[in-house]
Amino acid sequence: MNITLEEAEKVIAAAKAKAKEINTLMNIAVVDSGTNLIAFAHMDEAWLGSIDISQKKARTTRYFNMPSGEVGKLSQPGAPLYNIEHSNGGLITFPGGLLIKDTEGKIIGAIGVSGDSVENDHIVAQAGADALK
Amino acid sequence: MNITLEEAEKVIAAAKAKAKEINTLMNIAVVDSGTNLIAFAHMDEAWLGSIDISQKKARTTRYFNMPSGEVGKLSQPGAPLYNIEHSNGGLITFPGGLLIKDTEGKIIGAIGVSGDSVENDHIVAQAGADALK
Amino acid sequence: MNITLEEAEKVIAAAKAKAKEINTLMNIAVVDSGTNLIAFAHMDEAWLGSIDISQKKARTTRYFNMPSGEVGKLSQPGAPLYNIEHSNGGLITFPGGLLIKDTEGKIIGAIGVSGDSVENDHIVAQAGADALK
Amino acid sequence: MNITLEEAEKVIAAAKAKAKEINTLMNIAVVDSGTNLIAFAHMDEAWLGSIDISQKKARTTRYFNMPSGEVGKLSQPGAPLYNIEHSNGGLITFPGGLLIKDTEGKIIGAIGVSGDSVENDHIVAQAGADALK
Repeated sequence: MNITLEEAEKVIAAAKAKAKEINTLMNIAVVDSGTNLIAFAHMDEAWLGSIDISQKKARTTRYFNMPSGEVGKLSQPGAPLYNIEHSNGGLITFPGGLLIKDTEGKIIGAIGVSGDSVENDHIVAQAGADALK
Repeated sequence: MNITLEEAEKVIAAAKAKAKEINTLMNIAVVDSGTNLIAFAHMDEAWLGSIDISQKKARTTRYFNMPSGEVGKLSQPGAPLYNIEHSNGGLITFPGGLLIKDTEGKIIGAIGVSGDSVENDHIVAQAGADALK
Repeated sequence: MNITLEEAEKVIAAAKAKAKEINTLMNIAVVDSGTNLIAFAHMDEAWLGSIDISQKKARTTRYFNMPSGEVGKLSQPGAPLYNIEHSNGGLITFPGGLLIKDTEGKIIGAIGVSGDSVENDHIVAQAGADALK
Repeated sequence: MNITLEEAEKVIAAAKAKAKEINTLMNIAVVDSGTNLIAFAHMDEAWLGSIDISQKKARTTRYFNMPSGEVGKLSQPGAPLYNIEHSNGGLITFPGGLLIKDTEGKIIGAIGVSGDSVENDHIVAQAGADALK
C-alpha cells in the first residue's frame, strides 16, 4: 500500500499548520513506501540546506522502518551502525523523520521535516504523520 | 524575486487540474529563481522515473532562462550545445520545463512536468506557468 | 537580494589582503544567497584540497544561515545534528564560513575560506565579510 | 609551470572587458595546469547553469590540451571519442574553452567561458587567453 497524493497533501497541510502554530519555518517531504518523493513544500525563507535534509530524513525513516532519530542512536561512534550515513546516497539520522501508517497500522510512507531544532522538526513531523489517523 | 510557496501551490494545482482534464498522470516540480525545490506533487500511479526528470526540467529551464525543450534543440548531435546534459549534475532537455514569471514579467522560478508524451508534459507545464498571470 | 560581482570582488580583495597581512595562503569563495558561486580566488601555493572546502564552507553557511563552525558544534557525535555533513552533496562544518550581509543587515551571500588553521581561516573570512559594511 | 592568481585575474579582467564590449553576460573560470580552479567570476544575471559549464570547459580543455570545441568534434555519434563527456565527472565539449600559455608557449592553465552562444563564449575566452601574451 502506498500513500496517495491526496493523503500526502493532508500530511503536508497538517505539518505546515503546526509549523505556523509554533512559529517556525520548515521544509516538509513525504515519500511513499518505495521511498519515492510524493509531495514537498518549502516554506518561504526556510533554510535552503533543509530541502535536501527533509527528503533524506523521510527516506532514512522508510529505509529502516524507524524514526530517523532512532537510526542516529545506532550510528554513533562505537555503536552498531556507525557511519551508516554513507549508504543510499547519504542518510540523515537525526530526528524529524517518522513513518506514516494507514488506519490499520500498515506503513504507507514517511515524512521528513527540517528547518529548526531537531525537537521542533520532530513536533512538526509528528503533526504531519498524525494527520491520517 | 522568488516564487512563494503559496504561488507554487497555485501553479501545481493548475497543472494537476490540466493533467486530469487531459486524462494523464504527471509529476510536477516548482523551483525558485535559485533552482531550489519549492513544491512538488507526484500524481498517483504516475511514472516513478519522472520524479527526478520533472525536477531536472525545472532546473534546466531556470539555468538557461529558456524552455527545457529549447535547450534540447541546441544539444543534438552536431548542434552547438551537444551533450550539455552532462553539466550541473544532469540536465533534462526535452519539453516540459517552462519559466514562471510574475505579473511584471520578472522570472521568479520554473516549472517542470514529466509523466507522458513531451507534448502533454508541455501542455500541463503551460497550464501551471499560466496560473500566476 | 543577491551579492553583485563587484561586491564579491571587494570581499575577495579584503580577504586576500588579510591573508597576506597574517602571512598565510588561502582559497576564498563567495556564493550568492542562492548558494551559487559568484567569485573565487586560489592564492599561489595554497592547499589544493581547500579549493573545494572553501566553496563548501560558503554553501554550508548560507544553507543554515549561520557560520560554518556553528553547524560543526551541532554535528559532533552525540550532538543534535550528527553527520549532517552527508547532506547537500557534502558540507564542511568547521570555521571559515560566514554570512555576507548588506548595509541593512539582509543576507546577500556567504564567504568560505580555507587554507590554514581554522582560526586563521576564520580571521580571513571575517575580513572578507566586513568589506561591505 | 602554473598560472599565478595575478595572471588569472588579468585573464578574467580581459574576458570581462570583452564581454561588456560585445554586450553579453558571462561566467569565466580559470584553471591551472593541474585543472584546479584558480579564479572565477559570475557576471550579474549571467546564466546560473553556466557556472558549472564554464569550469567544465576549462577542465576539458586542459585534460586533452585542445580547445573544448575540438574535443566536441571528436565526441559526436560515430566519431572516435563518442560520449567522452561521461568521463572525469562530466565534460563539456563545445566551444568556450581555450588553453592559456606563457610567453614561451608553455601551457600554464586554461580558461572556460559560458553564458551566450558558443561563438560569443569563444570570443570572450580568446580575449582572456590573449591577456598574457
